Formats: sequence, C-alpha cells, structure tokens
Amino acid sequence: MGKDLKISLLLDFYGDMLTQKQRDMVDYYYNDDLSLAEIAENEGITRQGVRDSIKRAEAQMLEMEEKLGLSKRFTAMAEDARQIVEAAQVIRMHSFFPGAPREIGECSEHIIELAEKLQREE
Amino acid sequence: MGKDLKISLLLDFYGDMLTQKQRDMVDYYYNDDLSLAEIAENEGITRQGVRDSIKRAEAQMLEMEEKLGLSKRFTAMAEDARQIVEAAQVIRMHSFFPGAPREIGECSEHIIELAEKLQREE
Repeated sequence: MGKDLKISLLLDFYGDMLTQKQRDMVDYYYNDDLSLAEIAENEGITRQGVRDSIKRAEAQMLEMEEKLGLSKRFTAMAEDARQIVEAAQVIRMHSFFPGAPREIGECSEHIIELAEKLQREE
Repeated sequence: MGKDLKISLLLDFYGDMLTQKQRDMVDYYYNDDLSLAEIAENEGITRQGVRDSIKRAEAQMLEMEEKLGLSKRFTAMAEDARQIVEAAQVIRMHSFFPGAPREIGECSEHIIELAEKLQREE
C-alpha cells in the first residue's frame, strides 16, 4: 500500500474517532514512516494484522471525510483566510499616506491577527 | 425530553453520519416540532421506539461533537470572521478620506466578501 499524504491529514481531523490502537498504527505508518513489519514487531501482532487494521482505519476516515468533509472544508477556509491576510497586508502598506486616519492601520493589524488565527485552525 | 436548540445545530453538522431514519426522526422532532406521538404515528412505530431512536441519535452526535468539536470550531471561526467583517467595514468607511490610496477601498471590499463567505460556512 502506498503511503498517502492525504491519510496523514485525515488523521489530524478524524484520529479521535479511531480506537487508540488504530490511531497509533496509522500514526507509526504514515507519520513516523515505520514499515508494516516494524509495527508488527513492536505491537506483537502479525504483519497482516497491522495491514488490516490500518486499511480499516483508512476506510473509516475516508468515509467520514466523504460525509463530513471536515478536511476539505477547513482547507478551503484556510485559503480564504490566507487571502484575507494578503489583502490586509496591502491595506497596512498603504495606511501611511499623509493625514491617514489611524483606524486604517489599526484595523488592518487586527484583521491580520484574526485571519492568521483562522489559518492555523486548519 | 426537552427540545434542545443545540441538537438542531448538531444535526446540521453530523446528520450525514446518522441513518436516514434517525436523521428524519430527529429532524421532525427538533426542526419541525412534531411530538413523539405524531412521529410514531407517521412512521408506524411505537412512541417509545421513536424516543429511543432519537435518544440514540442524540448520544451519537454528542459523542462526535466531543471528539471532533465541529460545531464548536465552526462557531468560533464564524465569530472571528464576523470581527474581520466589522474591522474591514471601518477601513472601508475611512477609505473615502481625501488622498487615500484606492487599494484601501478595494482591499477592504475584498476582505468583507471573503469574511462574509467564511461566516456562512458555519
């Protein structure tokens, strides 16, 4: 089975819906890059057992993503937040014109702060 | 059982994780304000059967919310987005100041549009 970056992302969102054991195995395999054989040895089960368990966890997470779209929704929101930061930075850059109301600089700072926080929510 | 606004909100987020039958019954009870007896009659099952089914659906959704916090996370994000809209409106108001670079008006419009979209994601 090919190691899929997408699974690692899904684990961030849906990991809490798996059993501790499943979560650990998916984590070892995808995030720590251990082999099935290595995980099998550490867990004291067969290589096939590890493989089945990971496959089941993957299927569960893909099904949840299909139903809830959590990863997709947060990724889209993070992109919107990124664009907000960009636009607010342009405003901040232009906020120093002669006689500029101080609210322009202050509010652009505030927007950047909020939108950066939103981006981290991904 | 008291009708809980929170359940109605959870149904928006987690409804797709329930069976069609469960989803319908929770929807009739919480959104259409039908009584247990009315739902029982429509579905051709006992009042107790409806009650159990709704209780089970509620417990499932509350457990998912505890693990995934979808409703809580989106509500917090919508509040941040609301504050962004507010700040961008202040900037827009000041964008008519004599000598203000046109980028300030344009970018504040763009931010309002993006942040209003984010709010609707809730």
